[in-house]
Amino acid sequence: MSPEIKQLRDKLKGLNLSGMIVSNPVSIRYLTGLDAEGILIIDPKENLFITDSRYIESVNNSLTIDAEIVACDKKDMTKYDYTLIFEDYNEIGFEENYVTYAEYKRYLELFQVNLVETEGLIESQRIVKEPGEIEKIKKACEITDKAFEYIIGHIRKGMTEKEIAFELERQMYLNGADGIAFETIVASGENSSMPHAVPTDRVIEENDIILFDFGAKYQGYNSDCSRTVFVGEILEVQKEVYEFVLSQQEKIIENFREGTNIKTIMRNRETDYSLEHFEILHSFGHGVGLDIHETPSLNSKVDCFLKKNAVVAIEPGVYFPR
Amino acid sequence: MSPEIKQLRDKLKGLNLSGMIVSNPVSIRYLTGLDAEGILIIDPKENLFITDSRYIESVNNSLTIDAEIVACDKKDMTKYDYTLIFEDYNEIGFEENYVTYAEYKRYLELFQVNLVETEGLIESQRIVKEPGEIEKIKKACEITDKAFEYIIGHIRKGMTEKEIAFELERQMYLNGADGIAFETIVASGENSSMPHAVPTDRVIEENDIILFDFGAKYQGYNSDCSRTVFVGEILEVQKEVYEFVLSQQEKIIENFREGTNIKTIMRNRETDYSLEHFEILHSFGHGVGLDIHETPSLNSKVDCFLKKNAVVAIEPGVYFPR
Repeated sequence: MSPEIKQLRDKLKGLNLSGMIVSNPVSIRYLTGLDAEGILIIDPKENLFITDSRYIESVNNSLTIDAEIVACDKKDMTKYDYTLIFEDYNEIGFEENYVTYAEYKRYLELFQVNLVETEGLIESQRIVKEPGEIEKIKKACEITDKAFEYIIGHIRKGMTEKEIAFELERQMYLNGADGIAFETIVASGENSSMPHAVPTDRVIEENDIILFDFGAKYQGYNSDCSRTVFVGEILEVQKEVYEFVLSQQEKIIENFREGTNIKTIMRNRETDYSLEHFEILHSFGHGVGLDIHETPSLNSKVDCFLKKNAVVAIEPGVYFPR
Repeated sequence: MSPEIKQLRDKLKGLNLSGMIVSNPVSIRYLTGLDAEGILIIDPKENLFITDSRYIESVNNSLTIDAEIVACDKKDMTKYDYTLIFEDYNEIGFEENYVTYAEYKRYLELFQVNLVETEGLIESQRIVKEPGEIEKIKKACEITDKAFEYIIGHIRKGMTEKEIAFELERQMYLNGADGIAFETIVASGENSSMPHAVPTDRVIEENDIILFDFGAKYQGYNSDCSRTVFVGEILEVQKEVYEFVLSQQEKIIENFREGTNIKTIMRNRETDYSLEHFEILHSFGHGVGLDIHETPSLNSKVDCFLKKNAVVAIEPGVYFPR
């Protein structure tokens, strides 16, 4: 059995839960290594993965005896079979942050148990990364860095945002990415004031600011890279803001130590600097792993101590309307 | 106000609901044209879009007075403000197929109303497309067809699945796609038996079957194209299966007429052909629009009459293990 499933089973015991229904494909990948849709049932007797005909062959190909996971095709499951799974048990956990209200009601009917919220149990477990996970994230970051280095040498006036975004993605694939982590943002000029802009046909001009936000996926794991680039001359006021944000980022990284509380780091930051002349300051980051945005969120309301081998993206930003 | 919001308001009245909380970004885009995260509140007094600082500027830029939508930044909303929205009302609809169980509980606390399931109300409304929507889907299909035509002229032995997938996506972008509709599937040889294979470094060889499943996104709307290609010689048994599936597809398309019941089409098909010698037969299709998989599903259990201006992908498939 995977160490991830073992750890989850221990935690379920601690919560007096007899089992858990795991539905989020990211949780399933984390616990089993499987990249397939379905539901993973953790019950006292076994680990059962119920999938469908689109995935059953690849699932059976990947599972070894050591995985201790029984896979089955849902077309072979009767309604009665579902009621047998937790027959002798009652309190079963579920993923309240993933399961829709409609699915919740369907599970109640199907499994005939009490469904208990697990308060982000698997999400919390995923905060601390195993060495193998860190290697994959590192590789995703290398792919991203290399693509960015290439692109800053190739941006020319007259190119469009879309052309730059496409070339950036192409470089990531050439460097070994399996996919992109999220929709690439390349926002220039007035578009750069919008943190979630979509690349347009706007042509790059002299003195533009270009905002990049992009990442690569490598064996399921993500990188997240946010950069601001200036075309040609930099105005004094731009330089001032850029250096302010950079200093914030460096300060945050410096304060990131095992055992420090996230809200303390954020508060230190706020008392160190006057932010009055900035219009909006983004939340300053988030965990990164199998999801591009994971627990923990990094903002002044999060009362949570930093753990060893957690992986986070630190990306403070300042956005002026227009 | 958009015709889509007007229609929704009429339907809510018919269900005796005083309003609705719309959370799915695809529903929000359909109703408002906005491409932003947040929640859209339909209440008897107004249409209110609560978003956050990442989107507020672009939202305010896109909304005209005719939209009759008030946008606000959630940081300006107090807990008390939320309780005022439905102050004089009680039965409010929500999207039970999108809202998670945790969000459902948060909405109950925030809005202090009875939340009522709407049984896919907006999804049903989206089945019938407006002419403008059909134009966008047509454009997405043209982009896809052109890219496929290019790629079949450029596949060579020695190329990998990944290289083909990347070139296919590049062609879609060059033809005007804003993005891809879903992760491109290029599965060759033994990989082609898995409907949801991920492109690998497997090299194309003589006599390979290559399964393609891919699509483009154009102004939010998707295309979905599934094709099977043979490299070099075609075995007699392959040709037989290929022509069987093609005839199925043609037969289904022929029977697709306004007012026909989906399950009837599926049943006609089953009585016309002997399927005994095939291992798996996929569900034969689905609606396509702002989502790549929309209502209606096309399978023998769906008791639903086809409507004029519905858009569906018809993609029957036969998969033999290994």
